Amino acid sequence: MSFMRNMIIASTSTLYNSSYLAYLQTELTKLLKNVKEVLFIPYARPSGLSYDEYTAIAQEGLLFCDVKVKGIHEFSNAKEAINKAQAIFVGGGNTFVLVKELYEQAILELLKAKIEQGTPYLGTSAGSNICGPTMQTTNDMPIVKPPSFETLGCLPFNINAHFLVADKNSTHKGETRETRIKEFHVYNNTAVLGLQEGSWLDVKEAIVLKGNLDAYWFQKNKPVKICTPNTVFDEVASE
Amino acid sequence: MSFMRNMIIASTSTLYNSSYLAYLQTELTKLLKNVKEVLFIPYARPSGLSYDEYTAIAQEGLLFCDVKVKGIHEFSNAKEAINKAQAIFVGGGNTFVLVKELYEQAILELLKAKIEQGTPYLGTSAGSNICGPTMQTTNDMPIVKPPSFETLGCLPFNINAHFLVADKNSTHKGETRETRIKEFHVYNNTAVLGLQEGSWLDVKEAIVLKGNLDAYWFQKNKPVKICTPNTVFDEVASE
Repeated sequence: MSFMRNMIIASTSTLYNSSYLAYLQTELTKLLKNVKEVLFIPYARPSGLSYDEYTAIAQEGLLFCDVKVKGIHEFSNAKEAINKAQAIFVGGGNTFVLVKELYEQAILELLKAKIEQGTPYLGTSAGSNICGPTMQTTNDMPIVKPPSFETLGCLPFNINAHFLVADKNSTHKGETRETRIKEFHVYNNTAVLGLQEGSWLDVKEAIVLKGNLDAYWFQKNKPVKICTPNTVFDEVASE
Repeated sequence: MSFMRNMIIASTSTLYNSSYLAYLQTELTKLLKNVKEVLFIPYARPSGLSYDEYTAIAQEGLLFCDVKVKGIHEFSNAKEAINKAQAIFVGGGNTFVLVKELYEQAILELLKAKIEQGTPYLGTSAGSNICGPTMQTTNDMPIVKPPSFETLGCLPFNINAHFLVADKNSTHKGETRETRIKEFHVYNNTAVLGLQEGSWLDVKEAIVLKGNLDAYWFQKNKPVKICTPNTVFDEVASE
């Protein structure tokens, strides 16, 4: 695995009672220093927003650091857009929709290579789910069918974004997030990191948990481990 | 579409503070009258339970009506098991796991035909999700990849089991159930019925909402409709 990465992998784009990307401004100022234009990948289409509408939201969210945001759909050639990008932001929405389009455009491998060259990368929610080996710990509905669940593998473990600790007083009998991830481990070996809203991973030489909240580390056949902020994730011990 | 069906399609197997299938006992006594043996399909494996463990739970839940429950895995030939079944129960768990195994055993079409001959059918949760044209409105994680998302189509609309009305006081920024279903309708035309825990469909000549709770009817490009108990769903107006 390359150690040239420069990524912010965030559970969510937006905190309650806050504006889009606001809680990440300090981090993003660092990530995007020297960057004039950010390539935005709006494929996940939250609430079915058009690519243009979603790109406008991303532009608005990054105004504070004085960068131009351009949607990948505005380029005639998606591969060239990635090749030439100074920085890349993959926004949240539906992970199935995002991954299907990444496969249709045949840009997953290129995106991975570009990230591993050290190109600044911001992922939020679905854009973070795709950083692990597979998208199989998404919370999203399978509203479209991608040809494969395999994703970037820029992290050696999977992400569960918007992670929620079960409410012990709930009377709802649907599966808790923890139950779902444990069921994932009946069929899969990849470790899973449950990132609460407000947490992100800072990925450079090391993978470090940031924000004020704990994260939840799930490994097959092992008890859940609670990780405090600034935990460094071992590249190797992810299975 | 055949009108020979005799199905109970339930949002959940179990209510809070109640035992497995307890709230459905009156209905199941009717559904299973004259039935001596129920074929149980344990493929959805909630919490990764073995087929034997899960079948034992189903047997326990149906003891009250004096039927023998036999798991489909106990037969040397799954197709023959379905062909000979007096009644069929597909239990909940992970819908992706269930559908993958139904495809691997190549029994989806047979199951549909058997249901349309009027064989009594009970579905709970994942076992209800598969009654619609596709499993694409499941809440489950894609922990395995089925070859297709197409399911029985014994109903002309999709089910969302364990439906939850959004908590207006929530500070969580993950998608609400309603948002997810609206995103489904960006890409799909099939109507979706959100069934709360405690609701079920009684499917005979007609499809009727049962239980004490409202259900939520989602159609593409239309406002959500609230359906009160005893609503009859029109076979035709499902798109």
